[in-house]
Amino acid sequence: MKSDLDRLMKKHNLDAILVTGPAQHNPAMYYLTGGGHLTNADLIKARGNDPVLYYSPMERDEAAATGLQTQNLVEYGLDDLLKQANGDAIKALALRYQKMLAEQEITSGRMAIYGKVEVGAGYAVFSALQELMPDLEIVGEPTRESMLLEAMAAKDEAEVEHMRRMGKITTTVVGNVADFLTSHQAKNGVLVDRKGEALTIGDIKRRINLWLAMEGAENPEGTIFAIGRDAGVPHSSGNPEDLLRLGQTIIFDIFPCEAGGGYFYDFTRTWCLGYAPDEVQALYDDVYSVYQTIMAELKVGMPFKDYQKRTCELFEAQGHPTLRENPALQEGYVHSLGHGLGLHVHERPWSGSSAAQDDILEPGVVVTIEPGLYYPEKGMGCRLEDTVWVTPDGEMEILAEYPMDLVLPIQ
Amino acid sequence: MKSDLDRLMKKHNLDAILVTGPAQHNPAMYYLTGGGHLTNADLIKARGNDPVLYYSPMERDEAAATGLQTQNLVEYGLDDLLKQANGDAIKALALRYQKMLAEQEITSGRMAIYGKVEVGAGYAVFSALQELMPDLEIVGEPTRESMLLEAMAAKDEAEVEHMRRMGKITTTVVGNVADFLTSHQAKNGVLVDRKGEALTIGDIKRRINLWLAMEGAENPEGTIFAIGRDAGVPHSSGNPEDLLRLGQTIIFDIFPCEAGGGYFYDFTRTWCLGYAPDEVQALYDDVYSVYQTIMAELKVGMPFKDYQKRTCELFEAQGHPTLRENPALQEGYVHSLGHGLGLHVHERPWSGSSAAQDDILEPGVVVTIEPGLYYPEKGMGCRLEDTVWVTPDGEMEILAEYPMDLVLPIQ
Repeated sequence: MKSDLDRLMKKHNLDAILVTGPAQHNPAMYYLTGGGHLTNADLIKARGNDPVLYYSPMERDEAAATGLQTQNLVEYGLDDLLKQANGDAIKALALRYQKMLAEQEITSGRMAIYGKVEVGAGYAVFSALQELMPDLEIVGEPTRESMLLEAMAAKDEAEVEHMRRMGKITTTVVGNVADFLTSHQAKNGVLVDRKGEALTIGDIKRRINLWLAMEGAENPEGTIFAIGRDAGVPHSSGNPEDLLRLGQTIIFDIFPCEAGGGYFYDFTRTWCLGYAPDEVQALYDDVYSVYQTIMAELKVGMPFKDYQKRTCELFEAQGHPTLRENPALQEGYVHSLGHGLGLHVHERPWSGSSAAQDDILEPGVVVTIEPGLYYPEKGMGCRLEDTVWVTPDGEMEILAEYPMDLVLPIQ
Repeated sequence: MKSDLDRLMKKHNLDAILVTGPAQHNPAMYYLTGGGHLTNADLIKARGNDPVLYYSPMERDEAAATGLQTQNLVEYGLDDLLKQANGDAIKALALRYQKMLAEQEITSGRMAIYGKVEVGAGYAVFSALQELMPDLEIVGEPTRESMLLEAMAAKDEAEVEHMRRMGKITTTVVGNVADFLTSHQAKNGVLVDRKGEALTIGDIKRRINLWLAMEGAENPEGTIFAIGRDAGVPHSSGNPEDLLRLGQTIIFDIFPCEAGGGYFYDFTRTWCLGYAPDEVQALYDDVYSVYQTIMAELKVGMPFKDYQKRTCELFEAQGHPTLRENPALQEGYVHSLGHGLGLHVHERPWSGSSAAQDDILEPGVVVTIEPGLYYPEKGMGCRLEDTVWVTPDGEMEILAEYPMDLVLPIQ
């Protein structure tokens, strides 16, 4: 949690952190500023001190609105630094950081850097800064060892409220889609509109975006609405020209965020329009049973990856191949069980092969639980996903409930 | 242009480029792949060769849809590399890059890196790769010297069509907003709805997002709809609770992009509801006259920054303070004239103090022209902005025309 930052910086042996980039669609900066229309900012925090936000003069109001201590970047005289650096733009930016850090008395120790920015310029500037400040170790953490991702994993009540609200928006839109589909009739095995023209996945996706916008949400990563063979490939987002055929699996995976790149929700249902063929029903029953078992077995304090192992066991007992037998698997259980969720659509704790033993279901974390089976060659796939908060009491709470029915009845 | 990549790589003395990150909301990867739901990919191109796209197995369909030569990342055995690196995740990723590069016979020379990703991990991985491959110089270019941004500056016909379509969407939504505002009545100097309740800027912004979604566009950076004093601060995005008062300047700056993080459009009008006080009309007349002069003077082949200088001259002749006299200026002409536009909302060519002499209005570039005057203490600001394409024939073409009227009549 944000209130743990100093403790976690100490645990990770960090004396300072530096966050760079815009405040929107940049989780690290959003986390520490609360978002807002800051297009290009820096934030520096020494351990034990409050952070300082450095802003461009045109964005002084937005900077002030964060409530943080602020500093106008123009005061560091980039033009003069550029002369001092003989026109080397990278060196001038490094010199500016050196000045900013010196003011905060950060001149030695270890400083981690964060922010979603262009890697080329970032690599160059921080390499130059490292050269200018040999006593300060600039630390680029691997994703799974990131101090900030560890802080972000456990959500405080205010963050959970944001995610709960996004869950309500998400399931409202899912309900709109279900109502829209079931209000249509079928002709020759495909859904058609009143004029008798076939609906497409593209038609559905346009409506999803519209309904999300009506609820004030954004959809920066798109939506998976994939039918038939595409439903058998976990990240296939669906072909806009595909028709809505009865009796085929539709994987509907929706992961919108708050406007401005805030908190995400993540949710999947698998639907069959009209009826489910026996093979599809059997696939669904297998996934549903594993979903139920895992949900019942989840326990606060356990490593998340233990449940990935358990999910493999359960699917293998049903006769399905799993990822743990073959990491290049393309059929069966080819996905990880879930992932943390917050300002990133994927964050700690992890459950898959990249998870650490300390990716724990500790109080406060929000994770997806999304077992699935994928058989592209058989033209089908099934995934069921809910977002679960581990409450301060150690209970598992689904942040937005929604029915799990496979078949959407079509007249 | 994309077709110039090999020539530009040669000009910049680059033997290879490496692009990393998702395909959406990541301009470098979008440019070279055409977008799509690739959440985590790499692309490597040696000069003179076709690029190779490296993808995660779950995203094989999306990778194939790019039409590029592809390679499954799973084949590089990250788990084995992790063992080889004694559990050092950063080193394992660097070893993987080394293998990928070796297959493309990239072992020496200069390689630039691109992609909007977390800077910490990126800095660490490319530092480790640099250590593993001392004969290959890993180049992080400063933004204004980026080879890829130089390629992206001049658009080909297909790209301009995307931007023209976004221009049509943008001006359609602007028209919707104007119609919505003028369909309302005023009470006590503020716009009210049928129930007599005051409209807010938040109400307008919600509708903007809805109308953009209906047109299939995204709005990842938000919209500036700022009134009164906020209109006097160029990047103030507007207070959602503010009422729509008659006779105050409204700066409406809208910069949506194609769904999935594609091409942007950028457009600003300044409006006064009901009437314009003399002081506001005079402000508007000054900006409008500078806009007209600059538009008439723009010439293919000229450095863009020359027009920033010219704009300062023109505003100074009108008696306004300008940025060139004082870079920390907060009143008068405090903004640069414009910027390139494409997959970034701000890209080359630049016109402001960070512009290079080779930021040229060459055929193919798309730039914004947005002179403005800002007087926050007087509670007013004015900006007029259009997006202009320099055609292959060297003509200046506004990609979406829209009236410039200051006053929106209110009954």
